[in-house]
Amino acid sequence: MSLFQKHQPVLTDAVEALHARTFYAAFPEHPAPAVYGETADADGQAKFKNQLGKKFEELKQSNPQSWGGQEESPYTQEPLGVSYPLFSVNSLIENSKKAFAPWRKTSLLDRAGILMESLERTKKRFFEIAYATMHTTGQGYMMAFQASGPHAADRALEAIAAGYEELNRFPAHATWNKPMGKFNIQLNKEWRAMPKGISVVIGCSTFPTWNSVTGIYGSLITGNTVIVKPHPGAILPIAIFVAEIQNVLAENNLDPNVCQLAVDTFDKMITKELAEHPDVKLIDFTGNSAFGSYLEALPGKTVFTEKTGVNSVIIDSVDDADKVAANLAFSVNLYSGQMCTAPQNFYIPEIGIDSPAGKISFDDFAQKFISQINGLVGNPKAGPFVLGAVQNKKTSERVIEAEKLPGKILLKSHTIENPQFKNARTATPVVIELDASKKEIYSKELFGPIALLIKTKNTDQSIALAQEMAQEHGAISCGAYTTNADVHEKIADAMAMAATPVSFNLTGGIYMNQNAAFSDFHVTGGNPSGNASFTNPEYVTKRFTWVGHRESVKG
Amino acid sequence: MSLFQKHQPVLTDAVEALHARTFYAAFPEHPAPAVYGETADADGQAKFKNQLGKKFEELKQSNPQSWGGQEESPYTQEPLGVSYPLFSVNSLIENSKKAFAPWRKTSLLDRAGILMESLERTKKRFFEIAYATMHTTGQGYMMAFQASGPHAADRALEAIAAGYEELNRFPAHATWNKPMGKFNIQLNKEWRAMPKGISVVIGCSTFPTWNSVTGIYGSLITGNTVIVKPHPGAILPIAIFVAEIQNVLAENNLDPNVCQLAVDTFDKMITKELAEHPDVKLIDFTGNSAFGSYLEALPGKTVFTEKTGVNSVIIDSVDDADKVAANLAFSVNLYSGQMCTAPQNFYIPEIGIDSPAGKISFDDFAQKFISQINGLVGNPKAGPFVLGAVQNKKTSERVIEAEKLPGKILLKSHTIENPQFKNARTATPVVIELDASKKEIYSKELFGPIALLIKTKNTDQSIALAQEMAQEHGAISCGAYTTNADVHEKIADAMAMAATPVSFNLTGGIYMNQNAAFSDFHVTGGNPSGNASFTNPEYVTKRFTWVGHRESVKG
Repeated sequence: MSLFQKHQPVLTDAVEALHARTFYAAFPEHPAPAVYGETADADGQAKFKNQLGKKFEELKQSNPQSWGGQEESPYTQEPLGVSYPLFSVNSLIENSKKAFAPWRKTSLLDRAGILMESLERTKKRFFEIAYATMHTTGQGYMMAFQASGPHAADRALEAIAAGYEELNRFPAHATWNKPMGKFNIQLNKEWRAMPKGISVVIGCSTFPTWNSVTGIYGSLITGNTVIVKPHPGAILPIAIFVAEIQNVLAENNLDPNVCQLAVDTFDKMITKELAEHPDVKLIDFTGNSAFGSYLEALPGKTVFTEKTGVNSVIIDSVDDADKVAANLAFSVNLYSGQMCTAPQNFYIPEIGIDSPAGKISFDDFAQKFISQINGLVGNPKAGPFVLGAVQNKKTSERVIEAEKLPGKILLKSHTIENPQFKNARTATPVVIELDASKKEIYSKELFGPIALLIKTKNTDQSIALAQEMAQEHGAISCGAYTTNADVHEKIADAMAMAATPVSFNLTGGIYMNQNAAFSDFHVTGGNPSGNASFTNPEYVTKRFTWVGHRESVKG
Repeated sequence: MSLFQKHQPVLTDAVEALHARTFYAAFPEHPAPAVYGETADADGQAKFKNQLGKKFEELKQSNPQSWGGQEESPYTQEPLGVSYPLFSVNSLIENSKKAFAPWRKTSLLDRAGILMESLERTKKRFFEIAYATMHTTGQGYMMAFQASGPHAADRALEAIAAGYEELNRFPAHATWNKPMGKFNIQLNKEWRAMPKGISVVIGCSTFPTWNSVTGIYGSLITGNTVIVKPHPGAILPIAIFVAEIQNVLAENNLDPNVCQLAVDTFDKMITKELAEHPDVKLIDFTGNSAFGSYLEALPGKTVFTEKTGVNSVIIDSVDDADKVAANLAFSVNLYSGQMCTAPQNFYIPEIGIDSPAGKISFDDFAQKFISQINGLVGNPKAGPFVLGAVQNKKTSERVIEAEKLPGKILLKSHTIENPQFKNARTATPVVIELDASKKEIYSKELFGPIALLIKTKNTDQSIALAQEMAQEHGAISCGAYTTNADVHEKIADAMAMAATPVSFNLTGGIYMNQNAAFSDFHVTGGNPSGNASFTNPEYVTKRFTWVGHRESVKG
């Protein structure tokens, strides 16, 4: 049985799910012993610990220039001590060029089989990846497991499915038979989907696998070779994915350099040199807007970006203000506001919020929100695990700085103790009240656990501001609460015009930060928060070119 | 019966054809009286003649700033004297913004019905459009009829079909039901395809409808408003299309400014001002590479280009050298080499071409090619009609200049007499022999009836040069003649990597210049000859953004 045949049932389901957009997950999201094995967690943790302080020797990339690595755990604030092989940009490019022809000539079915097998292998290492993710990103255990393991693998599968679908979109061959009256002109035609060339995938420090695997698998399924350039602060999780891809490639007599890891260090970053190399045709990037925009403007490249944005919450009217406050408090606390989908600007009318219990004033709602935040961060069984740790020192500094903003500080940030990691870098949310007139303050991303409660004239102004923020500064998510059908449609239309998905009236165990493979398009590509979308058809079609040849049918 | 219901059978066939890529045409390409009516040709000619020297008053755009128009017939070298309403860029943009919301909120089915009805109306004016095309572009009658009428309408239909298909790609609604163990999380989800905004379609002087209708209909079906900026030398053909679109819009109580005509004059071009306007989100362009590349680099715009290229013919081995020479001679003569798909560089090995009759030397093949050209241009019943007239004086000058190129002039260009138009601007092909070492001469587009026979070491060099020209300078078409299966695949792969479709071994009544809707992708988007392709999925998906909203299912 070929690898394709082995994985075909899952691929078929995945393609179907991509279109139905109902719930689908190929990789179970719960780290349950019944699913992953009784010792899987302990084994994964042991493997992670055993890697610390050592060379990562799993890659099949030979002749490194040197070894290096500067990852540091936000939980211990100590270096991981893992070192990786370092290569010059030229040797990475040369290796990629050598690997290209055999890979692009590998059949689509074989490519699909190999890539799906690599995900299957990675599944066996989800716990190890989870610990690696915790200790590079600062994510809590549960998020680290889910986001870097099953959710990332589902997004990778989604990219494989989308590529498989698009590459099968047009026939490989057809006979074109044109009636000309007394005779027909007959041509044999064929169409080839030609990959664009070398693809560079640039990772970020907060979601090192989830934000990178779509580009990696999207480029690989369409026949491109890939160079993975992780963030120097978050390498190990994606290194394990790359190692497993290389294992399956080698087992199938293909050059492991089809997918290379290109580690660099903070003192000698190679991203620009890689991106600007004329042989690099595709670039995937997650990170700050300035660098993303620089990449988008590089001539002759196809670039996919996820950049920064200002995510809004519009609060118009609610069924249950406490449930709404609890839901939003969780959204702000989750991974200390370091998700690209976390809310920042909360627009609340100065006249208050309608509810079945009557008007809830701005101040009363603010109080409920703060109480819910305090309740969560003060709960030692929940707070430390929901908040996790702060990936970057600068984020902690920004949270402290935020207290100097010219608004009313409703809640100060503080650190909390993590029972497992005494030295964890933590920061609870700061909550600031601002008048809608203070646009210069809230018209930018303030990355981290920073919540701005913005007092608006009315919901119309709230909608206008949320739309303006998304159109001018980008937005990846939006929350809205309204019990009024007209307002609902007004928000839906205004934010759709700003290319921003809206989560309406979420309460209970589902949050605006969350984003499901096969159903939610992540980033839309239609506002400044990024030009690409996980995983719409363009996300894969832009990685290859349809070329049709034709020939006279011999008479 | 709604317009959608009226046209649904054709749309269904068109969507199917788009995928099957077998022969399909909704609009008959022959100007046969049995199809179009006994008096259709005479009536169309009369209508065209009646328009000369007058205002074009069919547009439903009110309050023009002034009237103007500078079209001139390449057949008479006299001004047409047709004037069009002229508008400021600001008023065009304001009108487009006003028309946008009602248009984007018009249902997809209604938009499709309206657009297909407009094509049906245009069909009744194909002869009038044909004469307008002859006397602006210089095309011969048959090409003018086919390219500007049925073939353009088929391409427009193809864009409608592609848009219709892509807008139906994902469900409007779905319920997302996630098992959480003891309970399910249920979300109602919806997806909206949001148009990007104002679309500007910039026309060219040689194919004023064929190259513009795909962008116009592609943008309109996806809910954008369109401003059509024709080339100041070729307005009337596309003005008729726009007028018919406006008629159907008005009949359906929609603002005719959904699709505006934005005429300018050579002394006051508005293209840059339009393209750079911040409200313009989409730009379609056909024309020279410098302007196309400037448009591609405009920040914040989605740009679709067809630019210039260097089209190659690789001659390795043939079954019948005379038939090959005849076919290529026709390709060079057709519309005096003014098609973007016309061949320019002919690579022939110095050791000659294999054939069943033995080796044919370079010189012998060159002689056959020249004889075929002379036979065609010297035939008064064929030559004038195949060559048509030269659109632009500069092209005639370039042909004369070409005789000064540092190669061996095998055939000089001359004018021929057109029996209908004594003052027609004509130019027969110039044929020049060059050594492959003279790369600086043949590494650029020499627009017009200019054929370069390039002596190569062997077919491998021919392939390498054809690939290099396409990759470095762009190519829209390629011809190849080989009877060797290995060479065939080598060419197919090399040119596919250069994103250039190859026509193999064409003889008889089919030519590399020709390009069929629903089957041949026109331009691939993968080399410098343009970044877009008629009509691949990207051509329409880039005109809108998928946005998904979601809401908790009420318990």
